[in-house]
Amino acid sequence: MALIVQKFGGTSVADPDKIRNVARRVMKKAAEGNRMVVVLSAMAGETNRFVDLATQMQAIPDPREMDVLLSSGEQVTVALFAMAVKDEGMNAVSLLGDQVKISTDNTHTKARIKEINADLIKQHLDNGTIVVVAGFQGVTADGDITTLGRGGSDTTAVALAAALKADQCEIFTDVDGVYTTDPNICSRARKIDRITYDEMLELASLGAKVLDIRSVGLAKRFKVPVHVRSSFTETEGTWVVEEDDTMESMLVSGVTYNKNEATITISRVPDTPGTAAKLFTPISEAGIVVDMIIQNTRAGDLTDMTFTVPRSDYERAMRIVNEVAGEIKAESVNGSLGITKVSIVGVGMRNHSGIATTLFNVLAREGINILMISTSEIKVSCVIEEKYTELAVRALHDAFELERDNQPVPE
Amino acid sequence: MALIVQKFGGTSVADPDKIRNVARRVMKKAAEGNRMVVVLSAMAGETNRFVDLATQMQAIPDPREMDVLLSSGEQVTVALFAMAVKDEGMNAVSLLGDQVKISTDNTHTKARIKEINADLIKQHLDNGTIVVVAGFQGVTADGDITTLGRGGSDTTAVALAAALKADQCEIFTDVDGVYTTDPNICSRARKIDRITYDEMLELASLGAKVLDIRSVGLAKRFKVPVHVRSSFTETEGTWVVEEDDTMESMLVSGVTYNKNEATITISRVPDTPGTAAKLFTPISEAGIVVDMIIQNTRAGDLTDMTFTVPRSDYERAMRIVNEVAGEIKAESVNGSLGITKVSIVGVGMRNHSGIATTLFNVLAREGINILMISTSEIKVSCVIEEKYTELAVRALHDAFELERDNQPVPE
Repeated sequence: MALIVQKFGGTSVADPDKIRNVARRVMKKAAEGNRMVVVLSAMAGETNRFVDLATQMQAIPDPREMDVLLSSGEQVTVALFAMAVKDEGMNAVSLLGDQVKISTDNTHTKARIKEINADLIKQHLDNGTIVVVAGFQGVTADGDITTLGRGGSDTTAVALAAALKADQCEIFTDVDGVYTTDPNICSRARKIDRITYDEMLELASLGAKVLDIRSVGLAKRFKVPVHVRSSFTETEGTWVVEEDDTMESMLVSGVTYNKNEATITISRVPDTPGTAAKLFTPISEAGIVVDMIIQNTRAGDLTDMTFTVPRSDYERAMRIVNEVAGEIKAESVNGSLGITKVSIVGVGMRNHSGIATTLFNVLAREGINILMISTSEIKVSCVIEEKYTELAVRALHDAFELERDNQPVPE
Repeated sequence: MALIVQKFGGTSVADPDKIRNVARRVMKKAAEGNRMVVVLSAMAGETNRFVDLATQMQAIPDPREMDVLLSSGEQVTVALFAMAVKDEGMNAVSLLGDQVKISTDNTHTKARIKEINADLIKQHLDNGTIVVVAGFQGVTADGDITTLGRGGSDTTAVALAAALKADQCEIFTDVDGVYTTDPNICSRARKIDRITYDEMLELASLGAKVLDIRSVGLAKRFKVPVHVRSSFTETEGTWVVEEDDTMESMLVSGVTYNKNEATITISRVPDTPGTAAKLFTPISEAGIVVDMIIQNTRAGDLTDMTFTVPRSDYERAMRIVNEVAGEIKAESVNGSLGITKVSIVGVGMRNHSGIATTLFNVLAREGINILMISTSEIKVSCVIEEKYTELAVRALHDAFELERDNQPVPE
């Protein structure tokens, strides 16, 4: 008899029929003898409706009140879901964030969970009741409602699974798992059966579509086995788990790309101490997150620096850099919006040195110029011209034979 | 500087524009130096939408979950309202039933308020903040959400006014006050400026359209002056207050009618002790509320009994009475659905004996037969044939000169 936390997103509970289908699915697991906790999002479309209403009241809606508004969405789904379960003959109880209770800090609209009291849920589970928890929401020490931000229901589910020491946490979504790359670009993309927490974190741009990245960090910290799967089929999805021996044979787990970045290059800056600080302090103070930074030293104590920022922050970042450029005596400032970051991710890289080389060779063979390179223990990222994105992704997917679930180990 | 509780119903907060208008109205009062507490209902239409969703899940929705569902409606309006106030430059905070907190018993969907903690509201008022409270909802000792049933937001407003010792409680609605009779029947109906709690309670059938009757009882108990007025105009409405000397001059405050009753007559019952008990015990046990009961003793120790029940309970009541009829040896049982109860209400009646006589004379003059009569200290009710309803109401309104706000005292 396992304790299972199951999370269903907004598209899975978009209308009464879908809610009933999901309820039946949960009840089947309960009938098999499992103790079931269900975490639900708001019905698809509700959050947009609320945001639309809120912005009619206030251009930038008050964050505390936004949370009061948004959290009402999950309140609706958990109540309807509990009714459906009761209608089908089992017992269920809905619990809101403050009823559980899920304590958070008071950063409204993107609060962080501080503590979960699992007592009430356990009591209900002991009585054989299916516990239906409103995802995405918590409560501050002062009793104010908070929400956890984008993907918050995933976080609720994993955090509950950790607090309850659940045997597994299943995240039901509208795709059937994590793929080796974007199937829209590469028809040979393959669903990954098992992947480590670290790989999943690095595959953020793939993972974001199926599993909120914060919840992966939480799952890693508390060793919660997470199963990402489709709410519309019975097929197994992708298990996100701790690294084990069987994973060594996988060198590369996936190829990912990110088109939401831009590069800024500052050329021929005198290479003196404090230059980087002068450049990046005002950017950081403006709340702009810099991803990659590359510095090449030229002859004559001059240096070139290139870094990436989110495309949405590009204009602001360029303004700041142009202001600083004179102060640090840079010769020129250039930027580009037409770039993509392509990455290969895999825990097997740690023990095999040829991976980056293969990557460079593949891109060279396709005539794709590499603008920037950055590496981590289990990832190699290259910035390339945006127009080559699909070509690069397909070539890398083929080169590492990701369509096979047992890749050959290179010589 | 007064402490004012203002309640706005669903039609007053039906969309963002209306919410903003109401917010401005409240802020105007706040700018005059008043401490403002606002109680809001769900946006018009939301409750129906929720009921529709719920009945798709369960034919008779689970009451606990129904309350979770319904209470989300007020949560939306209070958040939007607080945003509107902030957008217009004042401070506001929304509070839900469990945040205030409004403690109730655990009779879901029609809970009764047991206690209100006014501390948090007072703190916010002391800071000059407009406090926006979700109407209609409370919380049990176990932390479950409850709702107060039909008209519950009026009850929330009056209960808050009592707990806060507010100077006044204003109930904003879509009509501009309480009228001497139904303006749809009698074009000379006049808006009443001041009326006592007791009269308002007796005028239930008029009052129900503008003010929930439970809230009037609460207002009476805690001596809360209630002002019922239109949310669409600035015109003064009707004050519901304690009786004072100036009211003596008003003999009759209003004429009301109720078409939702039916009569049942049991003829020629032997007049022995216990007959009434045998008849009314099973009716009461079936949850049927009997309003008027009339008993006439005939010659020969036989008696006739007539009583009224709600029309919706008529069939059930007839079945019960027919079963009992044999036991109590009644000769016949008859019933009628085609009746109306017409009443005149006024505290001035206490000191003037001619009122009932005038009523009887007026009806006689119009050729209207009186089927039953019942009196209380401040009310006289007659059951008449339904077809005479409008005629009777207009004739009585004219006879007592209710279109004048200073009626002549009869000789």
